[in-house]
Amino acid sequence: MRYFIQFSYDGTHYHGWQIQPHSVSVQEVLQKALSTLLRQDVNVVGAGRTDTGVHARVMYAHFDHGVQIDGPQLVYKLNKILPSDIAVQRVCEVDGELHARFSATSRTYHYFVHLAKSPFLRHYSYKLYGEVDFAKMNEAAARLMEFEDFTSFSKVNTDTKTNLCQVTRAVWEEVAPGEWRFTVSANRFLRNMVRAIVGTLLEVGRGKLTVEDFCEIIRAKNRCSAGDSVPGHALFLVDVTYPEGSLCG
Amino acid sequence: MRYFIQFSYDGTHYHGWQIQPHSVSVQEVLQKALSTLLRQDVNVVGAGRTDTGVHARVMYAHFDHGVQIDGPQLVYKLNKILPSDIAVQRVCEVDGELHARFSATSRTYHYFVHLAKSPFLRHYSYKLYGEVDFAKMNEAAARLMEFEDFTSFSKVNTDTKTNLCQVTRAVWEEVAPGEWRFTVSANRFLRNMVRAIVGTLLEVGRGKLTVEDFCEIIRAKNRCSAGDSVPGHALFLVDVTYPEGSLCG
Repeated sequence: MRYFIQFSYDGTHYHGWQIQPHSVSVQEVLQKALSTLLRQDVNVVGAGRTDTGVHARVMYAHFDHGVQIDGPQLVYKLNKILPSDIAVQRVCEVDGELHARFSATSRTYHYFVHLAKSPFLRHYSYKLYGEVDFAKMNEAAARLMEFEDFTSFSKVNTDTKTNLCQVTRAVWEEVAPGEWRFTVSANRFLRNMVRAIVGTLLEVGRGKLTVEDFCEIIRAKNRCSAGDSVPGHALFLVDVTYPEGSLCG
Repeated sequence: MRYFIQFSYDGTHYHGWQIQPHSVSVQEVLQKALSTLLRQDVNVVGAGRTDTGVHARVMYAHFDHGVQIDGPQLVYKLNKILPSDIAVQRVCEVDGELHARFSATSRTYHYFVHLAKSPFLRHYSYKLYGEVDFAKMNEAAARLMEFEDFTSFSKVNTDTKTNLCQVTRAVWEEVAPGEWRFTVSANRFLRNMVRAIVGTLLEVGRGKLTVEDFCEIIRAKNRCSAGDSVPGHALFLVDVTYPEGSLCG
C-alpha cells in the first residue's frame, strides 16, 4: 500500500530536505523515525527539495508499506519520537499511482522580509536595509506570469531536464506594519528559483533595476544577470496541491 | 533631562529584566549600551520586571542625562550595538516627573498556548496536552475582575507592600486553529501573577477545578491553593500605558 504523510519542519538546523552524505537532512530523520516504528527500512519520497535552512509549513512525502497502517496512531507515535522541529499532521493511504513529487500540481512558497530590527522576526524573516518600493516589486512580480523559461533564476549544473515553469501567483503583501510577505505559486520550481526571484525583485525595489530590466533578465536565460539569492531562513514551503480527491480528507 | 526609551526583547537568553549578580539581564545589556554611547554611567529604570525567559514586545524604561539627546540617532546607534534579541523603537525626552514604573497606569500581557505539535510555535507558545475547555477558562477569567487582592497568585517572600491589583481585561481568544492567546491587563501585576493565573485557569480548562473553585482560591489569599505556574517562554509583555500626552508621539 502507498501512504502519504503530511508534515512541517523548521529547517534551521537541517541541510535541507534531501539526504546528504555528511550532514543531517529532514528526509533522513523522517525515514529513520518511520523505519523504527514500522520495523523495516522505509524510503520516503518528498514533494520536492528544500535547501539548507528553508522551512516547510506543509510538506508531503509518500512511502510504501506492505501492512495496513493506523494513520492517527502512527502520527501520534511519530510526533513522540521526532525532534521538536519536525511535526507530522497526518498519514493516510492513497492510490498506488499517486506520487508525492510527480503528481503534485502546484507548490506555494512564502518569503518574509521586514524593515525594522525585530527580536521576534529575525529567525524567520529577512531584515532589509534602506528604502524599498514594494509597489514597483509587485509590478515586476506580476510580469513573472508572462514567462515560461526561468533559466535565469535556476542553479547552474543541476540535473533538471527542463527549465519551464508556470507561475500562477506572485504578490507582495504587507502582513503587519513594516512586515512583508511574498507569495509565489507555480506548477514547479527550479532549485534556488524563489530566492533568486526575490533577490532580483529587491533590486527592482531598491531602484537598481527597472521592471523592464527585470523582464530582460528573464528573457536572457542566463543566471549571471539575475540578482543575488536571498537567505534561506525566511523561505517557507506553505502548500503543495494534488489532483482533487486524491488525498484523504 | 529625563528620557524614555521604548524597546522590545526576546527574553529566551536572559535572566529576566532586572540586573542580577551572576547572570545576564536585559537591564544590564541596555545600560551598558547606553553608557557606551552616552560616554557616562547610565542607570535605567524599567516599567516593571519580567522573569527569566519572558519576552517584551513593548517595554519602557527611563534614564536621566545632562546633555540634549538626538532621539532617532541614538535609536539607530543602539540598534547597531545591541544584540539581535533586543531592539529599540524610540528615545524621547519627557517631563522630569514621569517615572517608567510608578507613572505607568496599566500593563498588558499575552500568554500563548497551542494544541498540536508545531515546529514554529515551540519557542514562543506553551504546548498543551489533552482536552482543554477554553469557554470554561473564559468564564473563570472573567471573574478576575471581581477581585482586588491577588495574594494567591503572588510569589511568597517578595518585598511588595500590597497585593492589590485592578484587572481590567482577561480573555482567551483563538488566534489561529488550535492556537490560543490569553490577554490580561491590570494597573499592576505581582511577581509571577500572570503565570500563576494561567496555570490555575488551565486546571479549570481541564476540569480539575470548577469556576467556583477558582474564585475560592483567590478568596483564600494563599499561594499554595493555586495551580502550578506555566513556563515563561510563552509570556509577552505587550503594552504599558502612561497618562495621555506624557510620552512623545
